Amino acid sequence: MTTGRFIALEGGEGAGKSTQARLLAEALRARGLEVITTREPGGTAGAEAIRSLLLNGVEGDTAGWGARAEALLFAAARADHVARLIRPALERGAWVVCDRYLDSSRAYQGGGGGVSDVDLLTLHAFGSEGLLPDLTLLVEVAAEEVVRRLALRDTEGSDRIGGREQAYHDRVAATFRALADADEARFARIDGNGTPEQIHARILAAIAPLCEGAEK
Amino acid sequence: MTTGRFIALEGGEGAGKSTQARLLAEALRARGLEVITTREPGGTAGAEAIRSLLLNGVEGDTAGWGARAEALLFAAARADHVARLIRPALERGAWVVCDRYLDSSRAYQGGGGGVSDVDLLTLHAFGSEGLLPDLTLLVEVAAEEVVRRLALRDTEGSDRIGGREQAYHDRVAATFRALADADEARFARIDGNGTPEQIHARILAAIAPLCEGAEK
Repeated sequence: MTTGRFIALEGGEGAGKSTQARLLAEALRARGLEVITTREPGGTAGAEAIRSLLLNGVEGDTAGWGARAEALLFAAARADHVARLIRPALERGAWVVCDRYLDSSRAYQGGGGGVSDVDLLTLHAFGSEGLLPDLTLLVEVAAEEVVRRLALRDTEGSDRIGGREQAYHDRVAATFRALADADEARFARIDGNGTPEQIHARILAAIAPLCEGAEK
Repeated sequence: MTTGRFIALEGGEGAGKSTQARLLAEALRARGLEVITTREPGGTAGAEAIRSLLLNGVEGDTAGWGARAEALLFAAARADHVARLIRPALERGAWVVCDRYLDSSRAYQGGGGGVSDVDLLTLHAFGSEGLLPDLTLLVEVAAEEVVRRLALRDTEGSDRIGGREQAYHDRVAATFRALADADEARFARIDGNGTPEQIHARILAAIAPLCEGAEK
């Protein structure tokens, strides 16, 4: 029995993360691996309840969450997700493919919302004992392509966070790039332009080193 | 205009905190002060939504919150409560009387649940910029009197936290005492045995130093 691997997909709205997570999981399952696909915020019953508070807001509350409460709620959801789903899966040898994880908090609540990266890492150290992915795939798409893709969706991407102003999303994208540049061992930057199959092929190439010795 | 004062009532279930908070607020209002009564977890729309997750649990989740997720949720609720209600009230000169606050997290998630006090203070420094009450009234009642009072209630006190085993509540009570002993300047230990009027008189004596210069 091999030890599981933890792969996170990161990037802005419309980057194609969900599609790529599904394609990646299928490819890994075809190799005989147990694969869990999950997402953040959410992934467990408790974390999905917190997700609803974060993305749909609260009845009677017009102001929305402040940056600090929002960061604590994301950390709480992640703590439940890691303790109840991700860590048990990795310990039994499964691969975990997660659509968003810690680096989304660092990009959105940090770069976008102004919470310091040190504070976010402190919350993560407390809540999830600092668990990091073995590999984080940062899927990057040209801004005009994101606009085109989001226009094809219905109202998705227009929740309490996705619907924020462009300057916020520009800070998010810049923070993702800076995080990837600062930790090349954990990040792979993936060109998210092109067809889903083209992007999938780039992701398979990026995860190849993780697969060594992992096939059953 | 004077600056507001922040008074928290702490203690276990059945200590009479809610009754005493009401009596204290009435007495302060009779002196011409603006008084806000509130409670934790809760006090704002956002924090009350988190309260429901904490005390009622989540549909489809049988395991309940782990200690770390629970501590983060309490800190998130407190961050919203402080930012939206408590700090604005104090800044306009109101008195705030709060049924439970940070020391309940230290006693329940800390002493009861095993989260370190350093971690809880770190979460509080982040979430609420470390705001502490001017005075914390620790209302203490003999264990057999608590049993008698809780038996008179319906199902109240038997939520996800109140319903935990006796050893948990013993650790909570011991932690409250230790916190009060370690910070005598901020705490007043109140004998919670006797009639509501007797306990109210003890509380008025304890808050007298806070009132100096505060009457309009």
